[in-house]
Amino acid sequence: MNSKNQAVYRAILSTLALMTVFAMFQITIAGACGQSFDRSVQTARNFEPAIPRPEQDAAVAKKLVNLEKKTGKKPNILWIIVDDMGYGDPGCYGGGAAIGAATPNIDKLARNGLKLTSCYSQHTCTPTRSAILTGRLPVRTGLTRPILAGDKVTKNPWADEISLPKLLGDAGYATLLTGKWHIGESEGMRPHDVGFDEFYGYYPAQKELSQGVDGRRYPDLVHDSEKLAAFKEIAPANHLTHGFKEGETKLLAEIQSTEDMGRADKELANYTIRRIKELAVGDKPFFIEHCFMKVHADNFPNPDLGFLSSSKYAYKEAIAEVDLHTGELIKALDEAGVLENTLVFFTSDNGPQMDAWPDGGYTPFRGAKGTTFEGGCRVPGIAYWKGMIQPGHESDELFDLMDLFGTALKLAGVSADKLPDDRYYDFVDQTSFLLHDEGKSAREAVYYWWGTELMACRMREYKAHIKVVLPQSTHMHIDMSTIQNVGVAPWFFNLYLDPKEQLPVGHRRNAWLATVTGKLKTHGATFKKYPPKKIGL
Amino acid sequence: MNSKNQAVYRAILSTLALMTVFAMFQITIAGACGQSFDRSVQTARNFEPAIPRPEQDAAVAKKLVNLEKKTGKKPNILWIIVDDMGYGDPGCYGGGAAIGAATPNIDKLARNGLKLTSCYSQHTCTPTRSAILTGRLPVRTGLTRPILAGDKVTKNPWADEISLPKLLGDAGYATLLTGKWHIGESEGMRPHDVGFDEFYGYYPAQKELSQGVDGRRYPDLVHDSEKLAAFKEIAPANHLTHGFKEGETKLLAEIQSTEDMGRADKELANYTIRRIKELAVGDKPFFIEHCFMKVHADNFPNPDLGFLSSSKYAYKEAIAEVDLHTGELIKALDEAGVLENTLVFFTSDNGPQMDAWPDGGYTPFRGAKGTTFEGGCRVPGIAYWKGMIQPGHESDELFDLMDLFGTALKLAGVSADKLPDDRYYDFVDQTSFLLHDEGKSAREAVYYWWGTELMACRMREYKAHIKVVLPQSTHMHIDMSTIQNVGVAPWFFNLYLDPKEQLPVGHRRNAWLATVTGKLKTHGATFKKYPPKKIGL
Repeated sequence: MNSKNQAVYRAILSTLALMTVFAMFQITIAGACGQSFDRSVQTARNFEPAIPRPEQDAAVAKKLVNLEKKTGKKPNILWIIVDDMGYGDPGCYGGGAAIGAATPNIDKLARNGLKLTSCYSQHTCTPTRSAILTGRLPVRTGLTRPILAGDKVTKNPWADEISLPKLLGDAGYATLLTGKWHIGESEGMRPHDVGFDEFYGYYPAQKELSQGVDGRRYPDLVHDSEKLAAFKEIAPANHLTHGFKEGETKLLAEIQSTEDMGRADKELANYTIRRIKELAVGDKPFFIEHCFMKVHADNFPNPDLGFLSSSKYAYKEAIAEVDLHTGELIKALDEAGVLENTLVFFTSDNGPQMDAWPDGGYTPFRGAKGTTFEGGCRVPGIAYWKGMIQPGHESDELFDLMDLFGTALKLAGVSADKLPDDRYYDFVDQTSFLLHDEGKSAREAVYYWWGTELMACRMREYKAHIKVVLPQSTHMHIDMSTIQNVGVAPWFFNLYLDPKEQLPVGHRRNAWLATVTGKLKTHGATFKKYPPKKIGL
Repeated sequence: MNSKNQAVYRAILSTLALMTVFAMFQITIAGACGQSFDRSVQTARNFEPAIPRPEQDAAVAKKLVNLEKKTGKKPNILWIIVDDMGYGDPGCYGGGAAIGAATPNIDKLARNGLKLTSCYSQHTCTPTRSAILTGRLPVRTGLTRPILAGDKVTKNPWADEISLPKLLGDAGYATLLTGKWHIGESEGMRPHDVGFDEFYGYYPAQKELSQGVDGRRYPDLVHDSEKLAAFKEIAPANHLTHGFKEGETKLLAEIQSTEDMGRADKELANYTIRRIKELAVGDKPFFIEHCFMKVHADNFPNPDLGFLSSSKYAYKEAIAEVDLHTGELIKALDEAGVLENTLVFFTSDNGPQMDAWPDGGYTPFRGAKGTTFEGGCRVPGIAYWKGMIQPGHESDELFDLMDLFGTALKLAGVSADKLPDDRYYDFVDQTSFLLHDEGKSAREAVYYWWGTELMACRMREYKAHIKVVLPQSTHMHIDMSTIQNVGVAPWFFNLYLDPKEQLPVGHRRNAWLATVTGKLKTHGATFKKYPPKKIGL
């Protein structure tokens, strides 16, 4: 272990020490480490243990073989990632028209596909976006928080990572990322440097692009020429960028006004639609990650579209626009004739950001983006595949967005044996969970991290927090919060009985608590064998 | 005004005085009383003003005439009222399998009918149950809180009320109430005394029935013969009761164990199913109010049914059983051949009771039963009518459960002119809202009352609180809470942006605040002309 990652490992060790203190409440902690409630099995020492599902795996493998016989190709994959959309924002998750912005297209996707109600992201954007492309937790890759204007990393985190687009590209896929990237914009860290054939989008989040031109919200910056000049020194690229693997990187139109920002997602959707139609007639299957700029604050309505929501507020207009384009993307797949050979997965990169309210979303849960309460990490997750996923299926089984990595590999026919054994992989393959009519999850636990801090673990409906993010403003998060160790015992919740994490059941559920904290220990121990990477963030 | 109701009116006057203080924040309070945002029109001085919807009214009237030509009868009406079910408990409202108790039958009802997302009850049981049968607010009838064991009223509140079953009976309907009543059990106050042809159920709530036999939960009562004897002196009738208008009232089986309590809803559902089939072949149309005993605490699983939920907790089992019987009731309508001639309305009498947690439900909103936050008063509301209500329709337009009164009268062809003009009616007729494919609500405002306290008002997505119920325990309501006047200005929320009522937008939304508080004043003034009734509760 080099000196750089010693500090991170020390932090993890301190968490493990804290857990030892909790052990006094656990009569059978040793037994718990034997994990009587834990159904998962480890197949390789550097892979996250998974629950064996041999029958559904076999049934789904057969379905996939039959489909490939028909199409002569591996299936396409389209991920639709919304930025900062809350769990409760879509109508099918309890919001929609009821909160001022109907989402008929997203609701239709859920109605015709699999709606996940226990789908987990990381607590913020960059961690989620990097985790789904590497199959690894942010603490392992170093990408533990967004890289923001002025940030410099001491080591390119991508240098020794093997990205999903790289693996899929090697397996014969055409790969494209449209829209927001936010995992590094210097050379060597751009989408087309790390594996994508093509990138058409923006490096940072909306607020970083628009703050330099939004004189109404940031008059102290925009109307002060000295500050503005200083900002421009460190500001992220604010051009629409078109880049190609080992090819040219072109800067296209610049964001020069909030209206330009408002129009961005329409342009991005149009581009993905065009490429879907082009790639559908090519020889290769495609992997497209379509990343909306919306609904990350600051949102600006697209002036060309007129009002789309009953609420009329910018955030609600953004939700309605995301819904509109989601419908257009599905329509493009249909028109291109590939609806039956494409897995679509719709999700958000984390919970709603409440600091920006009213330019912020809705979660019924406690907390918001930046916390490891459910409000921060539980997100909409809809898998849609005409003919392959049973319409109207719902499941509360566990799914971590990192599992998209393993599922994509399986669909592309890339064996997990091809992955190196010098690093730990946190995904599990969920292909058969998503595609089987009565699919069960292969994931036994979700681990909640806050940067380099291990915070909590969920197994089935039970969640134990060992640290919590608590707001120090009256109701907001991120901008004024603290990380605190929990008190005498872990905060232990039954999420069926208490989805809002308000009524801990404490150490009285001893057997379960022992299992969950035992799982946390086992998880922590993986960092001893596979030390975390530090990149100077 | 007699002396008894002067105290109540004084309380209302004090509220109105408080509102005058707020007027200093309202530049155009006089203009607001002109109510520029208020679309409603008063058709009679003792009727709640309603938004005119002449076109949809005409279209729906035509649909109803055509149906009556076909069936030769007025339509049947079936209300399904769950006790204390939270807004979020059914799957179609964000809960279901995601919180450990799938509700496939309720979800199907919503999918095939109209799902209301802004449907309002009163804050507790008796107030809601009396309001929907009288079309009048509890403060007007005196039924402002549950009548509990040991309570005595000084005046029978029903003596001068004209109930819906009375009006429907006069119009040729057969009327039945099955299950929980809870609006008085002494002679003159029983369902079959106040208008129902028949009553088959229990007078009080589950907890009142089971507490005398539940030695595990109440050992201090059940295992102390002296206390138990004292309790039995004032305890409500714990027999299943079968009563007939101007006929016999029979006491059937007694609740002698928690298992008996667990079995009650199955027996009640069976009875309603039997009567649906019998009444369907009779000459008369029917009005059935089926009131579940479940899911009011204390819940006991039905030992004959096996486990129904993935969570297994008593509350979740109760939700799953309610769902099961709801499916059976709809099936009975179908088998009786009256599905196309019956309006079904499914709802709950108030928000979840959190004091009994984990024997309590789930609302995504702030507060719970007993409060006038959305958690207390916003409930599931599903209207289903095969062939008459468009499947998959959703609406966030305002609906107050009292509107069921006016809607039932309209369906039965009872003109509102028949109602006396010596009292104020708070319902509005929502027949065309429910039955039109693009129906809009006729209700401009929902008023939130806490007994005799006027607390808040909602118009469109805006809600102003002038008083609030705040918990004084760490997280529960009712058993430890206080009623407090709000501070400098009303707590003003935009429920689209802030469904959880956490982020007041204050007096800065002046025009709307003036409209809403103007509406509150107009509402308060109705009590001057039509004094509240006091019954010694």
